[in-house]
Amino acid sequence: MLTIAGIGPGKREGMTEEVLLALAQCDCIVGYTVYTELVRALFPDKEYYATPMTQETERCLWAIGQARAGRDVVVVCGGDGGVYGMAGLVCELLASASCGEDTAADGEWGGLTDSVGLRILPGVTAALSGAAVLGAPLAHDFAVISLSDRLTPWECIERRLQAAAMGDFAICLYNPASKGRPEHLRRACDVLLHSGYVEADRICGAVRNIGREGQEQRIMTLGELRDHPADMFTTVYVGSSRTLRLGKYMVTPRGYRRSS
Amino acid sequence: MLTIAGIGPGKREGMTEEVLLALAQCDCIVGYTVYTELVRALFPDKEYYATPMTQETERCLWAIGQARAGRDVVVVCGGDGGVYGMAGLVCELLASASCGEDTAADGEWGGLTDSVGLRILPGVTAALSGAAVLGAPLAHDFAVISLSDRLTPWECIERRLQAAAMGDFAICLYNPASKGRPEHLRRACDVLLHSGYVEADRICGAVRNIGREGQEQRIMTLGELRDHPADMFTTVYVGSSRTLRLGKYMVTPRGYRRSS
Repeated sequence: MLTIAGIGPGKREGMTEEVLLALAQCDCIVGYTVYTELVRALFPDKEYYATPMTQETERCLWAIGQARAGRDVVVVCGGDGGVYGMAGLVCELLASASCGEDTAADGEWGGLTDSVGLRILPGVTAALSGAAVLGAPLAHDFAVISLSDRLTPWECIERRLQAAAMGDFAICLYNPASKGRPEHLRRACDVLLHSGYVEADRICGAVRNIGREGQEQRIMTLGELRDHPADMFTTVYVGSSRTLRLGKYMVTPRGYRRSS
Repeated sequence: MLTIAGIGPGKREGMTEEVLLALAQCDCIVGYTVYTELVRALFPDKEYYATPMTQETERCLWAIGQARAGRDVVVVCGGDGGVYGMAGLVCELLASASCGEDTAADGEWGGLTDSVGLRILPGVTAALSGAAVLGAPLAHDFAVISLSDRLTPWECIERRLQAAAMGDFAICLYNPASKGRPEHLRRACDVLLHSGYVEADRICGAVRNIGREGQEQRIMTLGELRDHPADMFTTVYVGSSRTLRLGKYMVTPRGYRRSS
């Protein structure tokens, strides 16, 4: 049995009961080091297989191999495994193996779809857990965009920012910046500001270390967001034209109040 | 204490531990009848206050009033309270009351922000739980759009569909149809087909009764989705140009395989 489990922000209370059960019952827990360390604090006696970022394919192939050998393996993902997580990659690897696709990496795992039972357990992705900290910035239609250009050309990211601005979506930005790309959030703000659809006083928000020690949040304007010191532990929200700052809350109204 | 709790699909195993704890400890559970009935199956001895759809403001004001009177109240929302749920409305009502906004509905709840402690507990929204059933349709950038025009003009919905198509987002559609608006999914498919960005063979999916008895899923093309019999218990996915059908999975690759 191979399980992809979204662990939410990382603390026990933010995990679903089915994820906690899967972790308690499995033989082995696999993941990116940041997430396996969070889980190890809860289940210290399990076997762990952790690799750093960029080792995603190798890590998932290892998990598939263990599951094929009859072990009960859980691949843990921060937030939800289906949002910038490992669920897609594992499906790809299983499917290519079962189709006999002739690549060096996949060849050795032939026929996996038949021999491995895959189960995907969703979790609370950062868009949702961060929104709950700020109030309700995503309570109407929204778009989720990662600013990481490790796997996506920056032109594609820009195109999506422009489209989201044109559609007047509330926007949630993942991976707004990191050491290797400190300017990405500023560049994204500039794309929005130059889109012709978003003004500098648009209500925005940022949450850092969601649900973890040292959680910080701030509501601000898009002009201020441009200079906000975001890092890879920050999730960013850009409001739609309807988004309000209501005291300490950032809210995108759905319209219930007008309707009743 | 007033808690907004997202209950996910509705079964115990899909709720987070903090939501289960809040439900176990509270005095009173408030919500739309469909959701309170799901929770009542787990906590039959609690006090419940349930009202039908369109009574959202009245229901939230009742919950605020109970909390103000010193009771521990949980407002339950299907999925996540921050995604088309009650978190925004409750923030609006609390903020307007604390600002002394002079409306008939709010006046009687003056000064609430000080007297009511608000806590928002996120949950697994249908976009994520349905995606986990299909594979990983939202594993790269995505947009979430509701097709309900009860609170949103249809022109705004169309504009967002067109923008999402232009940005090549994977799209998750909530409220694709209901008895009162059986044609909305077909109309939305036509907007996408006429956008110039999405072909009729685009990979799409639909999941009905996610995580509940009678769960059904189907992967199909956009042309087929146009005639799919969706209802208010269905969540719909339209892939991006990169989305693949891999055997029984619908996957929007993030690009890990190419990178390693």
